Amino acid sequence: MALTSTASATWKGNLFQGSGVTRMDSSGLGTFDLNWKARTEEGQAATNPEELLGAAHAGCFSMAFSNALDQNGTPPTQLDTQAEVTFDTSDGPTITGVHLTVRGQVEGISAEDFQRIAEEAKAGCPVSKALAGTSITLTAELA
Amino acid sequence: MALTSTASATWKGNLFQGSGVTRMDSSGLGTFDLNWKARTEEGQAATNPEELLGAAHAGCFSMAFSNALDQNGTPPTQLDTQAEVTFDTSDGPTITGVHLTVRGQVEGISAEDFQRIAEEAKAGCPVSKALAGTSITLTAELA
Repeated sequence: MALTSTASATWKGNLFQGSGVTRMDSSGLGTFDLNWKARTEEGQAATNPEELLGAAHAGCFSMAFSNALDQNGTPPTQLDTQAEVTFDTSDGPTITGVHLTVRGQVEGISAEDFQRIAEEAKAGCPVSKALAGTSITLTAELA
Repeated sequence: MALTSTASATWKGNLFQGSGVTRMDSSGLGTFDLNWKARTEEGQAATNPEELLGAAHAGCFSMAFSNALDQNGTPPTQLDTQAEVTFDTSDGPTITGVHLTVRGQVEGISAEDFQRIAEEAKAGCPVSKALAGTSITLTAELA
């Protein structure tokens, strides 16, 4: 079974003076300002592709890890995942990596099993697999 | 120069009965419900990783294409890009591909140059490069 989800963007003008929006079309949950400044300077009220990619990856990893913990007989009470996505323009614009940090509340699991299953979920998560062209690292902490 | 953008997710419970949220932390633009149903059934009011990945890709491609058109001496008046991201669970959950559709309003460019530059932007866009593990296809139309 397959589901196709849809999002879109509109851009006006060139890269550096122009600006745009991006839209979550399938859910209808939002339309957000998008511009180059938000991609290269902190503290902007617009989004950028890296933030959106991070939201996709944090969500997908959390889902994959919850399922792997469940299959281990230890479903999580709660998983909190942060994704930090780095965009480097110094040698041609490149997404140099994603760092995932997960903190899990999981009853009845050893710290070793938690680490091992977290690493397996990082490798197996569909967004991780799609992101084969960038580096993905993980810090996992059992609460 | 490098900028790190941040997003996060919180998940409670197992994959199929549990649910979560995802947050755009760097911009503070939103927190969205996330669940398995939104990943496998149409018409849900929650988001999923594929929709967010599509928003990242539509935005990044539009920015890359605007810059390439500008470098050609033909900056765009407007680019409208849709990203369709397919999640297939039939043989292990996989993001099987992204289809980009761009419609461009660009003065003074031939249809051939528009197509060629669109294909180059698809290949060179940082999100496309990061997504080396999935298929990316493009339809480009000069308005």
